[in-house]
Amino acid sequence: MSGKEIEVVQNIYDENDKIALETKASLEELGIFVVNVMGAPGAGKTSSIINIIRNLPEEKIYVIEGDIESDLDTVKLKDLGINTIQINTGGACHLDAPTIKNALQNLEFSQPGILFIENIGNLVCPAEFQIGEHIKMLICSAAEGSDKPYKYPLAFEKADVILLTKCDLKEYVDFNDDFFLKGIRGLNKSVPVFEVNAKTGQGFSAVAEWLKHKSH
Amino acid sequence: MSGKEIEVVQNIYDENDKIALETKASLEELGIFVVNVMGAPGAGKTSSIINIIRNLPEEKIYVIEGDIESDLDTVKLKDLGINTIQINTGGACHLDAPTIKNALQNLEFSQPGILFIENIGNLVCPAEFQIGEHIKMLICSAAEGSDKPYKYPLAFEKADVILLTKCDLKEYVDFNDDFFLKGIRGLNKSVPVFEVNAKTGQGFSAVAEWLKHKSH
Repeated sequence: MSGKEIEVVQNIYDENDKIALETKASLEELGIFVVNVMGAPGAGKTSSIINIIRNLPEEKIYVIEGDIESDLDTVKLKDLGINTIQINTGGACHLDAPTIKNALQNLEFSQPGILFIENIGNLVCPAEFQIGEHIKMLICSAAEGSDKPYKYPLAFEKADVILLTKCDLKEYVDFNDDFFLKGIRGLNKSVPVFEVNAKTGQGFSAVAEWLKHKSH
Repeated sequence: MSGKEIEVVQNIYDENDKIALETKASLEELGIFVVNVMGAPGAGKTSSIINIIRNLPEEKIYVIEGDIESDLDTVKLKDLGINTIQINTGGACHLDAPTIKNALQNLEFSQPGILFIENIGNLVCPAEFQIGEHIKMLICSAAEGSDKPYKYPLAFEKADVILLTKCDLKEYVDFNDDFFLKGIRGLNKSVPVFEVNAKTGQGFSAVAEWLKHKSH
């Protein structure tokens, strides 16, 4: 890239972070705790959100669904009575702070609670952009294999909590727990890692308990 | 984005495509057929390449491995005696034409054959960039779920061939074949879709046969 191009890219990052911090501050005033849910396509982000919510019956929940196209997940969440709005990026590979700031105009916060923002399915780009979150939740499927921390380090480095989903598939993909955890610990010494299974609900009460503690 | 920013982005695309076409032309002169292998993290790109190569014993094979970090897959391929070089993008979410042009200086083409370029694990950004390929091969794991064509349309639209990997996991994730295929056909009327399983090798002889036909 030329000097001019690098400057433009740096400006985009700086402007993004400024808006993200403003968003975070204004949501904090309303008592909203924001969770940026990241992960590869098909990692189980929506299923994880649904299962966490089931274990938080006393919390007010809001969801913003980010997708390039389609509203499949928003329909799923609304059918469960969850207050959800859809963002379609129309091609963009991640959510950014201006996009979230705009979307928030369509979401009414009637009381304090937790806002889950499901990012675009992508283990690379979303990790580079703050969107106003208090924590980043990384969803990683056992079916993706145990080498992911080594290949996509930034997402693991920045995660405040990691969910290893589809744990029932471990045995079919020769998942190596030690290798996976060693990769994470090389990047992120203290991040909690929860093993979950959205088909049975296994593991999600512990995640919900952790999140409740974190958000209060 | 501002007008200046849009202009910079458009310049990057145009310059990329120009270099990609030059690369393709110069490889064609050497009798090299280039396959751009795309797919989400953990879709099974490397395993698919290995299984296809096993079914093409009479072809000369070259591989470029694209990863953000690590050389895990290159080690795997070299251990099998496959002529492989590694690219680490150090953060970038896709391979682009200038990166491939540079990498090709380190790869000696002793005879005509097939060059597999494994792109970064990302179902979004790689689909936007030509890198000098003759065909785009999209690798999609059954464990990712059957809704992927609806959520990540560009990759499915641009694919010249699609491999549905980890087919043994279909029953565990309630994979819906009809929904998956309907999504693909809405974007790409004629792309061949092969079901494969890298653990057993099932389905890869048909892929290899198709590729051999396509490359000659």
